[in-house]
Amino acid sequence: MKPEERRSMILGEALRLFSERHYTAVTVREIAQACDMNVALTYHYFRDKETLVREALDHAIDQLVAGYEARRVRHADPFAELTAWLDVHAELAPTVVRMVKLMTDYARSGTMDKRLDASISRFYGRETALLKGALSRGIETGRFRSLDVTLLVRRIDLMLDGIFSASPGRRDDRVAEDISDLKDALTEWTGADRLDAEPGI
Amino acid sequence: MKPEERRSMILGEALRLFSERHYTAVTVREIAQACDMNVALTYHYFRDKETLVREALDHAIDQLVAGYEARRVRHADPFAELTAWLDVHAELAPTVVRMVKLMTDYARSGTMDKRLDASISRFYGRETALLKGALSRGIETGRFRSLDVTLLVRRIDLMLDGIFSASPGRRDDRVAEDISDLKDALTEWTGADRLDAEPGI
Repeated sequence: MKPEERRSMILGEALRLFSERHYTAVTVREIAQACDMNVALTYHYFRDKETLVREALDHAIDQLVAGYEARRVRHADPFAELTAWLDVHAELAPTVVRMVKLMTDYARSGTMDKRLDASISRFYGRETALLKGALSRGIETGRFRSLDVTLLVRRIDLMLDGIFSASPGRRDDRVAEDISDLKDALTEWTGADRLDAEPGI
Repeated sequence: MKPEERRSMILGEALRLFSERHYTAVTVREIAQACDMNVALTYHYFRDKETLVREALDHAIDQLVAGYEARRVRHADPFAELTAWLDVHAELAPTVVRMVKLMTDYARSGTMDKRLDASISRFYGRETALLKGALSRGIETGRFRSLDVTLLVRRIDLMLDGIFSASPGRRDDRVAEDISDLKDALTEWTGADRLDAEPGI
C-alpha cells in the first residue's frame, strides 16, 4: 500500500470511529486496530489524536469539494452548479453524515481548537460562497428570478443540515429522496423551471 | 420542594447533562450532584439510568406539546396552528436542542430500547399528524393553495431538524431568526399571504 493510500485509509477509519462514538472517546490504538496496523506506524503518519481529528475532517471536506469540482467543470449553468453541490452530497452521503456528526460533537464539547475551527469555517465559507455565487450569477443572467440570496442560502444550509444531521435520529434514511426533493424545491424557488433548456445551448 | 417539582428538576438537569456529553457517559450520581441531591433520593424517583433517559425525553416532549396546546386553543386558523408549533419550538429552543441531541445520540449508539423508540415515534408521529392536519384543513377550506402535503411536511421537518441539530455545530445560534424565516417561507408555500385576515374574522 502506498503511503498516500495508507494515510487515506487511516483518515477514513478514524472518521468512521468518530461517528460511532464521541471522538474524544476514540483512541489512536483503536484507529490503528481498525486499519489492521501497528499503532507506531499510525503515529508515523499522524503526530497525535488532535491532528487525526483535524485531518479526518479536512479529508472528508476535500472529498466533497473534489467531487463538486469534478461535476462542476462540465457545467456553466448556475442551476447545474447548485445541483452539482447537492448531488455530491448525495453521492458521498455516509461521509457527510460522519463529518456533520464530528463537527457537531466538537461544537458541543466546549473545547477549542483553533485549527479545527479554521477548517470548519473554511468549509462553511466555501459552501456559502459557492451557493451565493451561483444564485447571484443566475439572477444577473436572468436564469433565476429576483430573490433574496442570503435568505435562500440559509434555507438550503438548514435543509442540508436537517438531511445529514437529525435524519439519522429518525431512523428513516432517505438522503437520496430528500436531496431530490430539495432540487425540486430549488427549481421552484429560483424560478429555474421557467426555462426548458440551459442558456447558451 | 414538592415531589412533582423535584421530579421535574431532576429530569431537566438530566437532559442538560445528556446534551453536554453522550448520555451513556453520564451517571445518576452526576445528575444527583447537579440537583444538589442525595443519589439515593434520585433513585427513589427514578429506578435506573434507562428510566431517567426515557423520562427526561418524555418530559421535554410534554413541555413542547403543552406549550403548543396552550397557544393553539386560541386559534381556529390552520395557518395559526402551523405557526403555533414553530413558535413553541422557538420559545423552548434550549430544551429542543437537547432533545434532538439525545435522540440523535441514541439513534447512532446502535443500542435498542423499545420504550425509548416508542417515545420518539410518538413524538414524530404527533408532529406529522399536527402539520398534516393543519395543512389539509387549510387546503379544504381554501385558506391554502392546493399543495403536496406529504412533501411540505417533510420539508418543514428537515428545516426544524436543521435549525435544532446542526446549527449548534456552526456556532451561529440563530434559532429565533431561522424560525421567523421558516414562518415567512410557510406563508409563501401555502399561499396564506393571499388572504389578509383569518377566515371567519
